[in-house]
Amino acid sequence: MSLIRIAVDAMGGDHAPSAEVEGAVQAARAYGVGVVLVGQRDLIAHELARHEARGLPLDIVHASEVISMEESAVRAIRKKRDSSIRVATQLVANGEAAGVVSAGNTGAVMATAKLELGSLPGVDRPALASVFPTTAGTAAVMVDVGANVDCKPHQLEQFAIMGEVYYRAMFAVQRPRVGLLSIGEEATKGNELVREAHRRLKETSLNFIGNVEGRDVFSGEVHVIICDGFIGNVALKISEGMAEAVTEILRNALSGTIQAKVGYVLSRQAYEDFRKRVDYSEYGGAPLLGVKGVGIICHGRSNGNAIKNAIRVAMEFSHGRINERIERELAVTSARK
Amino acid sequence: MSLIRIAVDAMGGDHAPSAEVEGAVQAARAYGVGVVLVGQRDLIAHELARHEARGLPLDIVHASEVISMEESAVRAIRKKRDSSIRVATQLVANGEAAGVVSAGNTGAVMATAKLELGSLPGVDRPALASVFPTTAGTAAVMVDVGANVDCKPHQLEQFAIMGEVYYRAMFAVQRPRVGLLSIGEEATKGNELVREAHRRLKETSLNFIGNVEGRDVFSGEVHVIICDGFIGNVALKISEGMAEAVTEILRNALSGTIQAKVGYVLSRQAYEDFRKRVDYSEYGGAPLLGVKGVGIICHGRSNGNAIKNAIRVAMEFSHGRINERIERELAVTSARK
Repeated sequence: MSLIRIAVDAMGGDHAPSAEVEGAVQAARAYGVGVVLVGQRDLIAHELARHEARGLPLDIVHASEVISMEESAVRAIRKKRDSSIRVATQLVANGEAAGVVSAGNTGAVMATAKLELGSLPGVDRPALASVFPTTAGTAAVMVDVGANVDCKPHQLEQFAIMGEVYYRAMFAVQRPRVGLLSIGEEATKGNELVREAHRRLKETSLNFIGNVEGRDVFSGEVHVIICDGFIGNVALKISEGMAEAVTEILRNALSGTIQAKVGYVLSRQAYEDFRKRVDYSEYGGAPLLGVKGVGIICHGRSNGNAIKNAIRVAMEFSHGRINERIERELAVTSARK
Repeated sequence: MSLIRIAVDAMGGDHAPSAEVEGAVQAARAYGVGVVLVGQRDLIAHELARHEARGLPLDIVHASEVISMEESAVRAIRKKRDSSIRVATQLVANGEAAGVVSAGNTGAVMATAKLELGSLPGVDRPALASVFPTTAGTAAVMVDVGANVDCKPHQLEQFAIMGEVYYRAMFAVQRPRVGLLSIGEEATKGNELVREAHRRLKETSLNFIGNVEGRDVFSGEVHVIICDGFIGNVALKISEGMAEAVTEILRNALSGTIQAKVGYVLSRQAYEDFRKRVDYSEYGGAPLLGVKGVGIICHGRSNGNAIKNAIRVAMEFSHGRINERIERELAVTSARK
């Protein structure tokens, strides 16, 4: 098997390019994966010089422009033809890289991936999948967490098929349990979209367990959670916000009395493990399912470790031939109708 | 001022009637409020006998039927004409109680309140408001968290007006900051409903700060958060689920090593404070805004303390003349158009 190469948008995140370069170095060393760092050559080279990177399969491809977090995605894509996001994505489109990883402007990364890579045959709209931690220690994957709003029922059905393939390949579960996010378990509960999507999902060959509620997300009872991208994005951001809030509230509580401080010092490792479990930047990014190629979108705050994890996810996505499987499943489903 | 009486559905919650009776006794003692316990007389009397309740302003009103958590609300309301939920709500409709508190079947409580109390003039659809904790120590109130799905923009505008009045009265903030829950701060982001509601909210006299994201909920930057009830219910359940999950993950982490256990023992009070801050049953229930009367819906898991808090909220709602204010504000808004 020839060396897999992943393109990393080195200019994207809040800590670019240092987090991106660090993650690339770590991934190349840990997995032997080739990484192409895309962005302003001088900046990247300067950052690379700070690492022990000799002999590692790392390259730099220059891109003169940077799309900032605050820019309108639509305008930025039109104006900045030589952005690091675009150049990195084109490496995938041209077959020079197996996937692209970016912690940059999410809207711009998604739009660029759709534009430069195109959708897989049979995919109406690509969707973003994100991992949620569960108390069972397993992962729950939610699709869509923000690529689409005002979805139609047949689109939710496609999200379910794509999410199921992704879960099966990445987490080695034979028949992942697929649930539809709603506000009550009964099929009659929910809104118009959910009621119609429920009917459609029941007719697929998926292991559809019916409607699930927000609190089931963290239980481990459901593996793949399907929803409109507006709902999913709110759910994701609420969880992230809550995770940050509880960490802060806990920190404040633990710095209150001398006794609490001593307790904290003794239990610091446990507390650190806890923080990691609920810290979304640990989860290695969100794949955009349904595009021709592999696109992994990271949180803007990503550190080197998060970028390293995202590169690993991009590798596994490619190795697992997830897109071929999605194409096949969608063809089977549409043939059945 | 004559004694205020609050009707409590004593048969509703997971721990009924013990939690309800305990909460009623505590509230009567702490606030001097009259409480009418509604439900199966013998059961309630038996439970009451376990408390030091002599001399407290407590009454029992008999209701022969109980609506369970699992029942379909529509069917239960039609069939069970003498349910504790209905009898308690009728006490409010007849002016015998100032408000009703129930930890029972949420759908049945809401439907009964709408049916028996009716809507305030100018209110298109009553909405459920729920308190979220923030790191700032202030409260954030979200409207709607599940009374309505597939909302229209003008309904979201009404939710904002009702939520603002509620926040002003309950939390003594002169000009509460009102935000619209979306997936990006720009007015152009979101779905169709949010974009149109944003335009309408900008034209009101509310202190509208624009769109807010899920993570802003816990920051204290926004006081009143407006959304469709499907979104709000998912947001609420996700937060509750996450709060439970982090508490469990933390407990497991802290029982791992001897050192962590010792640390936990020393800092137990801090962890307990933390748990209370993120435990939704501490927050005294969700008011149904826009009905003629006061209806407070509690979590099924509510303990005595949660019921006591809900009775206090019902009292304050009534004292604050919140419904009169809502009526007035809605009249002003519709006159302006």
